Order: sequence, then C-alpha cells, then structure tokens
Amino acid sequence: MPAMHIDIIAAIPDLVREPLQHSIVGRAQEAGHVTIEVHDLRDYATDKHRQIDDYPFGGGAGMVLKPEPLVRCIEACQSEAPADAVVYLTPDGEPLKQPRVNQMSMHDHVIMVAGHYKGIDQRVRDHYVTHEISIGDYVLSGGELPALVLVDALVRLLPGVLGDASSALTDSFQDGLLDAPAYTRPAVFRGHRVPDVLRSGNHARIDEWRDTQRIEKTRTRRPDLLDNELGDELEDE
Amino acid sequence: MPAMHIDIIAAIPDLVREPLQHSIVGRAQEAGHVTIEVHDLRDYATDKHRQIDDYPFGGGAGMVLKPEPLVRCIEACQSEAPADAVVYLTPDGEPLKQPRVNQMSMHDHVIMVAGHYKGIDQRVRDHYVTHEISIGDYVLSGGELPALVLVDALVRLLPGVLGDASSALTDSFQDGLLDAPAYTRPAVFRGHRVPDVLRSGNHARIDEWRDTQRIEKTRTRRPDLLDNELGDELEDE
Repeated sequence: MPAMHIDIIAAIPDLVREPLQHSIVGRAQEAGHVTIEVHDLRDYATDKHRQIDDYPFGGGAGMVLKPEPLVRCIEACQSEAPADAVVYLTPDGEPLKQPRVNQMSMHDHVIMVAGHYKGIDQRVRDHYVTHEISIGDYVLSGGELPALVLVDALVRLLPGVLGDASSALTDSFQDGLLDAPAYTRPAVFRGHRVPDVLRSGNHARIDEWRDTQRIEKTRTRRPDLLDNELGDELEDE
Repeated sequence: MPAMHIDIIAAIPDLVREPLQHSIVGRAQEAGHVTIEVHDLRDYATDKHRQIDDYPFGGGAGMVLKPEPLVRCIEACQSEAPADAVVYLTPDGEPLKQPRVNQMSMHDHVIMVAGHYKGIDQRVRDHYVTHEISIGDYVLSGGELPALVLVDALVRLLPGVLGDASSALTDSFQDGLLDAPAYTRPAVFRGHRVPDVLRSGNHARIDEWRDTQRIEKTRTRRPDLLDNELGDELEDE
C-alpha cells in the first residue's frame, strides 16, 4: 500500500510547517504512512517582487491571490500525475463532515490550497480546483489552519497510523452519535464520584450505559445528527 | 480598552506555540491587542512521572486526561479573577458559528482547554468548564488545532487588529450570506476573462452583481443559511 502524499500550498507556509512535525501527523510521516510537502506560494511568483496577491477587480476591501503563481504551483505538484483532489479551503465550500474525510482518506495524492482570507482568483476555483471545503461557519484569517485540520482528520485514518484500530471507529461522528462521557482515576475527585456502573466490571451493563448516554447526549445536544443516516452527505455523488 | 487575555491549556503545547507567532495573531500580540499564554498541562501534574492521562474507567480504547492536573491549571489561570469563559474544545460541543465568535470576542479573559482526542474526565466538564465548543463534525487527534482556530477567529475581531475595518464585516457569515467571487489581475488568464461588470467602473452595477452572486451562491450551496436569521443560534440565551 503506497503512502498518501499531501501537498499544501500556502501563502504563509511558516504557519503550517511546525504543527506538522508533532503528535500523530509527525509520527505518521516518520513511520512512512504519509508524505507531506509544504509549498511557499511566493516561490512560484513570476515577478521580481515575488508578488502573490493584488487588488480585487471592482474594488472593495482585502487582497486576492493572483492566478498565475497559484496555478503554476498546482501544476508543479501534478507534474508526474494528476492528483486525486485539488482542495481549496474556503468558508463558502462544502461543510466538512466525517464521511467526506473517510472518502478522501482513500486517495493517494491530495493537494490543498490555503489562501488569504479574501480568497483566490475565481478562475482558479472554476478551472483548477476539484473540491471546495469549509471547516465551519466562521471567519478565519486564512486557509492554513483549515488545511492543518483536514490533514489531521485524514492522516489519523490512514492504515497503521493509530495503534489501536478500534479507537478511530469509536469516536464521535463515525457512527453518527456523540461520544459517551469518559472518566479516569481517581474514583472520587473533590467529592465528585465516577458513576458506579463504570466500576462494576459488568461489561454488558457498561456498554448499555454508554449507549444510553450517547443517544441521550446526541438527542439533547445535536438532534440534527439523529435525522441523518451516516453518509447522507455523499449519497448524491 | 484592556487587551483580551487568552490562556491555552494543552497536552501538546508545541503544537500551538509556533502558529501563534505568525500572521494576524502574531501581529495582534506584538501590537498589544491580545496576550496569549500557552500552558503545558504536564507542568501541573502531581506525580513525579508528570502523568496527565490514565485508562478510562469501564475499559475501552484511548486514554483520558486526568482531572487533577487540568483543574489545577484551570485554577492557576484564574488565580486573580474568574475568566469570562472556560472553553473545552470537543467534537460533542456546541457547533461553532460566527455569532458565538462575535459574542466571545467581547470577553476580557478566555481559557481554552485542548484535550487528547479521547477527551477529559467528565467531572471537569461538569464542574469547571463553562462552554463546550466543536469546530465541526469530524474527528481530530486533539483539541490543539481547534483552539488555534478559535483564537484566530476571535483575535481578528478585536478592535484595532484588522487595518481595514470594513474587511471583517464583508466576509462570509457576518451577514448570513456567502462571499461573492473575487478576481484580480490579469484581466485575461489563460483565455479566462474577468466578468466585464467588474471592470466597468460602475459601482452601483458592481454592488448589484456581487449581491446577486452572493444570494445565488448561498441558495445553491448553503440553502440552510437562508433559513436562519443571523444570531438565531444565540437567541435562547
């Protein structure tokens, strides 16, 4: 099984480089499960000032990333073979949900474009980007953190990355329910006790308690999740 | 106006430290608009092995962050005065939306708890955390990236941080609509032309075109946004 390759094209590459060296994503690279290359968009600028953004046509606030450097970089990343996905992280993209992450984790080569917060030239979106993804309905200053979020979500699903295979499958969202409450030692903390059932050693009762908690928490906090079957978001593809 | 203070409590502090030094968040700290302190949860462990996690009561995959070190750290952050919010970043929290960010940006002191992906002891959630926030319906390996996302969303709203005041208000979500397409030079890129209207110099027509594009894009991509008035998410408080 070949390792996944991820290219990240960033206007501010320093923002993404360091976090990729730590935790699960760092260890997954060391173990050869994924290779990640960060590209400084400025290296693909065509003028001597290495300009990557410019004023928007029609006026208005904010700068827009120019098409040439970005497309040159996207093409360089695909010089050997087309990528499975060229993802643009943008607040007006498809809201990211776990089924999309699961699907994308089966790709061999993903390119991620992290833009300034006023965005990239629309012609790049129309003709070179294959997926537009939003990590949530809030405004950020750029696409760098969203790219890191997508990398983290993808990498932990790659074969061999998580030591305990059952761990990835028992998280919130993998089966459409929120996770059960978790407790660890001490059994009494400042007068607050762990629920007796969890210390009973009766695993059938523990599973039943956790299932009840999950359903109840999901019903209270996220009734919208109960209306959807897992994978609904992808069924129109 | 006093600067906002943000404490980030992290199991993997190296993951958050470097990104805070760059871009808008880095400059906002230099300019004194916000102070951000990263706390290594391990510094608050009580045993000589500096243990911060332990096996879950009742069995199952994944480790749980122990209550003592975390509560000691939360209390240390509030030794002078209680924080306005103690936020736990967790996939089963309230889905983060822009109105919540706007509201939280008016706080003086926010504490963010970034846990392992299997979570923190439920008793800390019940008795010490005031807000549980999810950045989206997908599984990540920890709360560090979500904390960075929330910091970025908050800091760009603080007075004086964005040079161009209109910029923060014309983004996607601030008025419930997605952003209009953006274009910059050249006017023709590999045969693809910028829409003529944007080069017309007629600002009334440009505004009308952008409004139409925004409404049409929102209707096509995110009809759910049109069903909600801005601020609906907070109306029950």
